[in-house]
Amino acid sequence: MENQDPNPIRCKAAVCRAAGEPLVIEEIVVDPPKAYEVRIRIICTSLCHSDVTFWRMKDFPGIFPRIFGHEAFGIVESVGEHAEEEFAVGDAVVPTFLGQCSDSGCVDCRSPRSNMCSRFRFAVRPGMPRDGAVRFSDAQGRPLHHFLGVSSFAEYTVVDVNHLVKVNPAMPPALACLLSCGASTGVGAAWKLAKVEPGSSVAVFGLGAVGLAVVEGARICGASKIIGVDINPDKHELGKKFGLTHFINPKELGEKPVSQAIIEMTDGGADYCFECIGLAALMNDAFQSTREGWGKTIILGVEMHGAPLSIPALQILHGKSVIGSLFGGVKPKQDIPILADKYLNKELELDKFITHEVGFKDINEAFNLLLQGKSVRCTIWMDK
Amino acid sequence: MENQDPNPIRCKAAVCRAAGEPLVIEEIVVDPPKAYEVRIRIICTSLCHSDVTFWRMKDFPGIFPRIFGHEAFGIVESVGEHAEEEFAVGDAVVPTFLGQCSDSGCVDCRSPRSNMCSRFRFAVRPGMPRDGAVRFSDAQGRPLHHFLGVSSFAEYTVVDVNHLVKVNPAMPPALACLLSCGASTGVGAAWKLAKVEPGSSVAVFGLGAVGLAVVEGARICGASKIIGVDINPDKHELGKKFGLTHFINPKELGEKPVSQAIIEMTDGGADYCFECIGLAALMNDAFQSTREGWGKTIILGVEMHGAPLSIPALQILHGKSVIGSLFGGVKPKQDIPILADKYLNKELELDKFITHEVGFKDINEAFNLLLQGKSVRCTIWMDK
Repeated sequence: MENQDPNPIRCKAAVCRAAGEPLVIEEIVVDPPKAYEVRIRIICTSLCHSDVTFWRMKDFPGIFPRIFGHEAFGIVESVGEHAEEEFAVGDAVVPTFLGQCSDSGCVDCRSPRSNMCSRFRFAVRPGMPRDGAVRFSDAQGRPLHHFLGVSSFAEYTVVDVNHLVKVNPAMPPALACLLSCGASTGVGAAWKLAKVEPGSSVAVFGLGAVGLAVVEGARICGASKIIGVDINPDKHELGKKFGLTHFINPKELGEKPVSQAIIEMTDGGADYCFECIGLAALMNDAFQSTREGWGKTIILGVEMHGAPLSIPALQILHGKSVIGSLFGGVKPKQDIPILADKYLNKELELDKFITHEVGFKDINEAFNLLLQGKSVRCTIWMDK
Repeated sequence: MENQDPNPIRCKAAVCRAAGEPLVIEEIVVDPPKAYEVRIRIICTSLCHSDVTFWRMKDFPGIFPRIFGHEAFGIVESVGEHAEEEFAVGDAVVPTFLGQCSDSGCVDCRSPRSNMCSRFRFAVRPGMPRDGAVRFSDAQGRPLHHFLGVSSFAEYTVVDVNHLVKVNPAMPPALACLLSCGASTGVGAAWKLAKVEPGSSVAVFGLGAVGLAVVEGARICGASKIIGVDINPDKHELGKKFGLTHFINPKELGEKPVSQAIIEMTDGGADYCFECIGLAALMNDAFQSTREGWGKTIILGVEMHGAPLSIPALQILHGKSVIGSLFGGVKPKQDIPILADKYLNKELELDKFITHEVGFKDINEAFNLLLQGKSVRCTIWMDK
């Protein structure tokens, strides 16, 4: 009956003590899971741009000390009350920043159109979703804040059952980890949100992990023209591995707007344009680059400066549309297993997302690699 | 062989000589139809807000003297070369401001997703779509400009075959006329563009003819909650005839934003919000009033001040979308006959749109009624 009364666990975590400062590996205490919670041993994790965004954020919802990390793969270590219906010790799992209650009484969870669970509404909380409290404390017994319901930069973490998905144990840990956030977001955006059709034209603004995952998703959906837009010229060769057919470096266009280049390449505008950076000006460029009649702009980037999305009102009357989504429209518990199957069936190629790996003690190196634009995903192994 | 060499026709038209001035009934000459053109005898016409917008417009594409009118019903009087494949003298027809070439080589016409024919692209031209020239001249032989490819404020007009749709002659002329623009736009927006589902909640901003047609369309689609928003309190009772279940007069809300009222009425936001006025601020209100997860904002109004549509970038990430369309997504030649059938099958109720009627000589009265918000549609009978 080891699960009945799990004890606090003393382990290591990479704690961020103040905005923008390097993480510090500290010994922490992880409380046992409460009702509807699961404690997992993190096998590997990776760094996503959203971690960096909140790592830099001085004001609320930026809050410190905090344990970041929300893209991870782990093994269930212990389960709280009522959690045993869904999870058992030893299960291979990925935590997700987006919750899904899967309750038939939740209009969003029961609808195929939404992934915004209305009972576990998305929020950047500093604690657990149900009681708002933390499950982490430092060596001095002071509380450490959570991040996005996951906090995977720790050897052990506690997550709500609604933020946890079982995955096929045949999935390699580093690849299952990618399904926890970045790869699912991008592939999902092409597959579920835009519903890219065979033969269509796609433009992707920003070839970070999410943008490359959109390229991968568009490739799987059969898009015939996939145009990448990035000011980093190295992304051209990299993007080709994911299925990119064309590349635009806006810095090399001279006076020509990116939208003009895309309109020329696609004979009138792309069917689908994805904004994966989070800049209002780029969202507008993406919109301008879509074709009249049915061109769809998909917003995935979190606008960094709080600027509104501003689009010409007359142009939208010409049959264009704009849609946005968190997690690419993916319903975690339903769709992550499907994406895992797509990987195991050799349809979805995940290996190419991983460009680097480091041991946990070198986690700050993963920050450096991402900030310098050198890595797509750097796997951070907890036991190395 | 009367169609082989039709002669110029001398008839009456309501000519607008300068921006904002009352129309003047004048004798004009209507040229015979050229290749791919049809000359029609207008039986009745009505005034749409777009006529008023361009009637007031001093600068290009405002141009004078001009013959306005683009919502009409007529009978084919003569057909130009190549037009006889589709039209014959005596056919009951409605002209449309939006062209449809129906050619299998037109990617838009062959796609079910688009109504923006890419061969006959929408434009506010002062002449005919193919040669740019006019078919009207005044008593002094000076040219008179066309409007939206229709110019129905004349006893006879010449239209391109791509701007003309045959309708079931069983349709009453005044009701067929409504399908030419306003009713089709609103009903189409609910039916084809938003694809409103049974049981869904709908909010309509602006209860002019298009807004009321959205209400009618939402009713036909089975929406269970249809909320009208208008600052004219008379629209409440009127809207009920079309299927309105709730009414909001923003002036009576005090400090409460319209979106807040709609969110409360719909337990989280409407599934579909239609903007039928053309004000960027209202477009934003409509967006704010949609629910997270799948809420769709449909833009039908032509923004009057050239302001961009500005929406909070973070909110769109919560699964919301915005789509716009001309003519409500209706493909004229394909969908107007369907709408006529819906009327003849007593599914679509058109009679209630007509609140007034005048003879052609009193056409300026139709302007007054519309400008004062008194009429939904005023039928202008050419022979009265």
